[in-house]
Amino acid sequence: MQQKFSQLIDQMQDDIVQVRRHLHMHPELSFQETKTVQYIKDFYDALQIEYQHPIGQNGLVARLKGAKPGKTIALRADFDALPLQDEKDDAPYQSTVPNVMHACGHDGHTSTLLHIAKALHALKDELAGEFVFIHQHAEEMAPGGAIEMVRAGVLDDVDEVYATHLWAVNETGTIECRKGAIMAAADHFLIHVQGHGGHGSAPHLSKDALVIASTLVVQMQQVVSRSVNPLQPAVVTFGKIESGDAFNIIADSAHIEGTVRTFDPETQKLVKQSMARICEAFGDMYECTITLEYRDGYPAVINHDEGVDIVEQATHDLGLNYVECEPYTGGEDFAYFLQEKPGAIFFTGAAIEGRPEYPHHHPKFDIDEQSLINAAKMLGTIAIERAASK
Amino acid sequence: MQQKFSQLIDQMQDDIVQVRRHLHMHPELSFQETKTVQYIKDFYDALQIEYQHPIGQNGLVARLKGAKPGKTIALRADFDALPLQDEKDDAPYQSTVPNVMHACGHDGHTSTLLHIAKALHALKDELAGEFVFIHQHAEEMAPGGAIEMVRAGVLDDVDEVYATHLWAVNETGTIECRKGAIMAAADHFLIHVQGHGGHGSAPHLSKDALVIASTLVVQMQQVVSRSVNPLQPAVVTFGKIESGDAFNIIADSAHIEGTVRTFDPETQKLVKQSMARICEAFGDMYECTITLEYRDGYPAVINHDEGVDIVEQATHDLGLNYVECEPYTGGEDFAYFLQEKPGAIFFTGAAIEGRPEYPHHHPKFDIDEQSLINAAKMLGTIAIERAASK
Amino acid sequence: MQQKFSQLIDQMQDDIVQVRRHLHMHPELSFQETKTVQYIKDFYDALQIEYQHPIGQNGLVARLKGAKPGKTIALRADFDALPLQDEKDDAPYQSTVPNVMHACGHDGHTSTLLHIAKALHALKDELAGEFVFIHQHAEEMAPGGAIEMVRAGVLDDVDEVYATHLWAVNETGTIECRKGAIMAAADHFLIHVQGHGGHGSAPHLSKDALVIASTLVVQMQQVVSRSVNPLQPAVVTFGKIESGDAFNIIADSAHIEGTVRTFDPETQKLVKQSMARICEAFGDMYECTITLEYRDGYPAVINHDEGVDIVEQATHDLGLNYVECEPYTGGEDFAYFLQEKPGAIFFTGAAIEGRPEYPHHHPKFDIDEQSLINAAKMLGTIAIERAASK
Amino acid sequence: MQQKFSQLIDQMQDDIVQVRRHLHMHPELSFQETKTVQYIKDFYDALQIEYQHPIGQNGLVARLKGAKPGKTIALRADFDALPLQDEKDDAPYQSTVPNVMHACGHDGHTSTLLHIAKALHALKDELAGEFVFIHQHAEEMAPGGAIEMVRAGVLDDVDEVYATHLWAVNETGTIECRKGAIMAAADHFLIHVQGHGGHGSAPHLSKDALVIASTLVVQMQQVVSRSVNPLQPAVVTFGKIESGDAFNIIADSAHIEGTVRTFDPETQKLVKQSMARICEAFGDMYECTITLEYRDGYPAVINHDEGVDIVEQATHDLGLNYVECEPYTGGEDFAYFLQEKPGAIFFTGAAIEGRPEYPHHHPKFDIDEQSLINAAKMLGTIAIERAASK
Repeated sequence: MQQKFSQLIDQMQDDIVQVRRHLHMHPELSFQETKTVQYIKDFYDALQIEYQHPIGQNGLVARLKGAKPGKTIALRADFDALPLQDEKDDAPYQSTVPNVMHACGHDGHTSTLLHIAKALHALKDELAGEFVFIHQHAEEMAPGGAIEMVRAGVLDDVDEVYATHLWAVNETGTIECRKGAIMAAADHFLIHVQGHGGHGSAPHLSKDALVIASTLVVQMQQVVSRSVNPLQPAVVTFGKIESGDAFNIIADSAHIEGTVRTFDPETQKLVKQSMARICEAFGDMYECTITLEYRDGYPAVINHDEGVDIVEQATHDLGLNYVECEPYTGGEDFAYFLQEKPGAIFFTGAAIEGRPEYPHHHPKFDIDEQSLINAAKMLGTIAIERAASK
Repeated sequence: MQQKFSQLIDQMQDDIVQVRRHLHMHPELSFQETKTVQYIKDFYDALQIEYQHPIGQNGLVARLKGAKPGKTIALRADFDALPLQDEKDDAPYQSTVPNVMHACGHDGHTSTLLHIAKALHALKDELAGEFVFIHQHAEEMAPGGAIEMVRAGVLDDVDEVYATHLWAVNETGTIECRKGAIMAAADHFLIHVQGHGGHGSAPHLSKDALVIASTLVVQMQQVVSRSVNPLQPAVVTFGKIESGDAFNIIADSAHIEGTVRTFDPETQKLVKQSMARICEAFGDMYECTITLEYRDGYPAVINHDEGVDIVEQATHDLGLNYVECEPYTGGEDFAYFLQEKPGAIFFTGAAIEGRPEYPHHHPKFDIDEQSLINAAKMLGTIAIERAASK
Repeated sequence: MQQKFSQLIDQMQDDIVQVRRHLHMHPELSFQETKTVQYIKDFYDALQIEYQHPIGQNGLVARLKGAKPGKTIALRADFDALPLQDEKDDAPYQSTVPNVMHACGHDGHTSTLLHIAKALHALKDELAGEFVFIHQHAEEMAPGGAIEMVRAGVLDDVDEVYATHLWAVNETGTIECRKGAIMAAADHFLIHVQGHGGHGSAPHLSKDALVIASTLVVQMQQVVSRSVNPLQPAVVTFGKIESGDAFNIIADSAHIEGTVRTFDPETQKLVKQSMARICEAFGDMYECTITLEYRDGYPAVINHDEGVDIVEQATHDLGLNYVECEPYTGGEDFAYFLQEKPGAIFFTGAAIEGRPEYPHHHPKFDIDEQSLINAAKMLGTIAIERAASK
Repeated sequence: MQQKFSQLIDQMQDDIVQVRRHLHMHPELSFQETKTVQYIKDFYDALQIEYQHPIGQNGLVARLKGAKPGKTIALRADFDALPLQDEKDDAPYQSTVPNVMHACGHDGHTSTLLHIAKALHALKDELAGEFVFIHQHAEEMAPGGAIEMVRAGVLDDVDEVYATHLWAVNETGTIECRKGAIMAAADHFLIHVQGHGGHGSAPHLSKDALVIASTLVVQMQQVVSRSVNPLQPAVVTFGKIESGDAFNIIADSAHIEGTVRTFDPETQKLVKQSMARICEAFGDMYECTITLEYRDGYPAVINHDEGVDIVEQATHDLGLNYVECEPYTGGEDFAYFLQEKPGAIFFTGAAIEGRPEYPHHHPKFDIDEQSLINAAKMLGTIAIERAASK
């Protein structure tokens, strides 16, 4: 069965590329993806596959039932783009929208999922189980579309859920995955120190916000060095500090921003609590007001062990190259799906051979379109196998 | 003789006020005081008192010889104004120059000194010694006019040198002075940390300029707390810090500015050396480049003990109210004169009774013009007495 | 074959326990294990198995050839004891040597390995490959016996090497293992700050060793928080600080000691270099002498992936309970063997049911002797299987 | 009159020396000075001068009335010794008491005051006013004798109070004094950090007392660098830190001791409050218990301006050498007398020419006995003059 599926995907190669390029030329920002969704609807309408829309602000879910009983397997693809000017040198499929660009591969994810649905639809009389195609909006902008769709119940009767991310810095033909944490929780925090300014020569009459902020930055190094479990990775980065206007005036306020990266909810909570406690204690100590605004980002993406075994098996079955990766410190709201149901996300290598490497979110970002075929085969193979499993 | 002098000053009261108001209406910025100097020249020309100009960029020195042998005593007044818009409510003598204002009393200093010269000139046949009237440009802008004039030799044959500063926050009728340090050395420093930026999740691949700068600020607290003599006041204030643009990117550089206040050259040198040593060591420690640009301001103003005794005596003789003040943390380039020759500077109270207190450099700054008379009598009395002394 | 081996081990159960108890009653400190080695020699002599001794200061290696060609597989057991007074309540096999005790299970390791050799010897006509029985001295005291034996070439013709550690805090019947780092590199460092003492009221005349040391401790928090890869666990712990004798005298020196734990040689090197750089920079900054004595402990024990797969397989084959553990932060000089040849170490659960848990190196430490059987079967099974593998 | 007094003192020179040597040979520790007080009683009994004893634990006050009306002037001398073994090379008047020694000159103070009383007694028919001779116990051991005597009312009807301290590191013939703060407040503090110990490899399970204590030391540098008025000297010195026993165990507690020196009660209070606030905030921040025990020492000794003018005048009248000194950072409980009544303390130079300088509290400490004469003349001259003043 999987072989038949793969053959169908091979036959659809040109269509897959074409749909991806169409989407690439018409990118839309997170939460504003109206034309993209219309395109998806038209695609499913043409196939007479049923779908629901909107789920959350802009999500769409299509479903397909096999002829035989089996499990319900969901596959997810996101479809929003980024606020970037496309600077690819000469691709015929360059973005037609100024300052908006599919610079993260979501166009490819969507085209892949649509054609998986098409191929499974063609095979449906021979298939066991049921397939759920989750087209998610707004992955790039917190709070993201995933949490809305999960809350709307898209996983309620689903047994397992899978996704891939095309990965432009990995060789085409490789599939990367790992058990447990594969992508970090990436939070954003803002600290405001409200001291009391004064003349540079009279520190005793002021609450020196600049010194307070600097001391806070130094103190918070101990969150990572002493408070968290050394076996649990954690990063507290201060990306920005601003305090004071003049060399000889004591600043009355200071502003700090930064990010926290963790792979484990306990550690994330601990970091957050430690930072809050330090801010509060420093406020008391310096008799000033320190406010911490801690904005939770997406949680860490935690692959389920069995899901990863399945990904590994599919990789071998398809003759692709399996690599166990280190955790990535970027974030992904697929995390919310894996908090609900078993499954996994994997990285499908998409580097264009011989081209300099442009990372995700780069104005010259592009993918080897062969990766679309690999991604489609991987997800489809997994879905068929899992839907038929006991 | 002093009594005769004081009577002359009393008779000149209207002229003194008028000249001060004329200057007040026509302020000029530091190093650009051409009309002011022309006014001074005209004044001395009218009296047929000889002078030299320019000394340094714009200084003028007039001299007057008494009939009898004696010492050579210099008096100094500065004449530049500030880049401020005059916002006095309704004074008829408001500044006529937009964004330029005599907001520090130098107009009064100048009018006072001119009329001291006029009065001494009237008495010259009865006077011993010689009088040097130093009209200094550019006190408000480092490196200032004083050092140029001192280097040009204006004090070469001078025995003692005196000055006053009208002081709008002290009651009119008081004279403040103190032995030793009376005004601080106020230096300006800039520190640049050149680290190596990176992604917020990968601190180990960066040299985090923000953390380095914060740690530097904390470390430098020990300059004051441990390195300087506790009996020698010193302030190291960081007025400004800027590092980083985005919350999730590790900053590649940081910029800090601040000021150092000291009252004693040894301490100033020690602070400077300590800061340089910390910057260098942190550069080595963090394997990054830290540059310290340390801009010496005016040195501390150190009154000579005998000069202060003389000021105190004159205050009593004139029936004014002598107050021993604490050192002020502001700067004055009269410091350079006192590095060369004995003497003192004192503060002549100039607060306008019943008016809210506007400090120096404030857009509503003004003085009680009675202070001009007090200042003139003080300096003239001192000069006559010292010139006749053995 | 493995089944036959296991049956033999079961039959030897009483002997295994007896030998373990004999060794337990006659413990010897690291590098002084003369009687223990004699006991081992006698054992092999009785079996007419050949051995070499001494290798390094006190190591012994016995070898056994199977009848068929195959691989050469080494098994290692250590045999030194600890400087502790045995405080077990009433065991008949208590230590007979005051202040020396087998409180880490090496007695069990040795008895196990001897009986594996005996069992394999009995089966040798049916076995493929060759077996190397490494009896290592001095595991408990750096620099340890392992490195000597490795340098002496004991692994030169060996294909794979395995060991177990009896683990008194894990349930008997479990086998713990993990791929990659399983035990930490545990280093010891000593920092001496030589400042310059003085009267408590005159910090400027001193180099305050206590403040320098405290600042160093705070600064070194950044080694973990900023310098090491967040995905690589690292701990820098300061266990001890001493500075000063009197509350009102500035201390002239300070002494700090601590430990560094890492699982990866790159990270270990980085921590070491960072600490050295901080000490040197602080010496320059404070114009004092700071010496860092960094004593490398054993390197991290890094299991080879295939070795762990083999351990897991053997666990299942023997019906024991396999657990993937977190890395342990303790050290083991088996690390040196795994730096040379593929293989793995695993933990054989040895907790005595119903008895309070006494950790390793505790005066009441003891093991469930059933664990000896489990350990023997595991190692023997692995050895037979690997020796016969292609 | 002063001249007559000085002649009497000159005539008593041998007696003054003899009494000082007697006391030097029979030193007694603070609060245990029974024989010394008996000696003083006998002296006054012989003169038939009335006295009161005990005042506080061991103080004695004698009084003498002049024939004419006038002011009441008190002179104070302390009489306790130190727990030191006398190591003078060969003085015939070495201490006869093992481990007790007059190593601070109080023997000289007492002999001086007794002979002033004797001389004034001889002149009493010609004197105006009244004289109060305060013999104070226990200056060397907080809380000291002064506060008890002041509370007992010894200054109730006194107009002014004076004292001197023999000063072995100043040239004999000099008198040092200064207006305002002349000796520091010297406080003692103890900080205990009660954290939670643990294994060196698991910082997250502990509250690391050593790191907490080090961070506290660093944080408290900001008390001096930022919280106190830069014109007000303040020292916070940490003299002692102890934490942890083993390099690889996280310490559960830390102990710090230190001293605070200030010259102004406001600053002292501010330092104390800042330290308390930091300890409390760190306790909250680290979730541990930090206790600060702050032991007030003697307050700063603040000379009254007029008293110092009087000391200076007396110095000139007696042909001695007046020096305005910097504040000393040592403490003196004469502070309590000057908190009640106007007056001053001054330092009477007592260096032995040609002998290496041994500071106060040194086992070889000694004084030039000519200083006794200078001290007696100074205090007597002042007392006579002030008692007769209006």
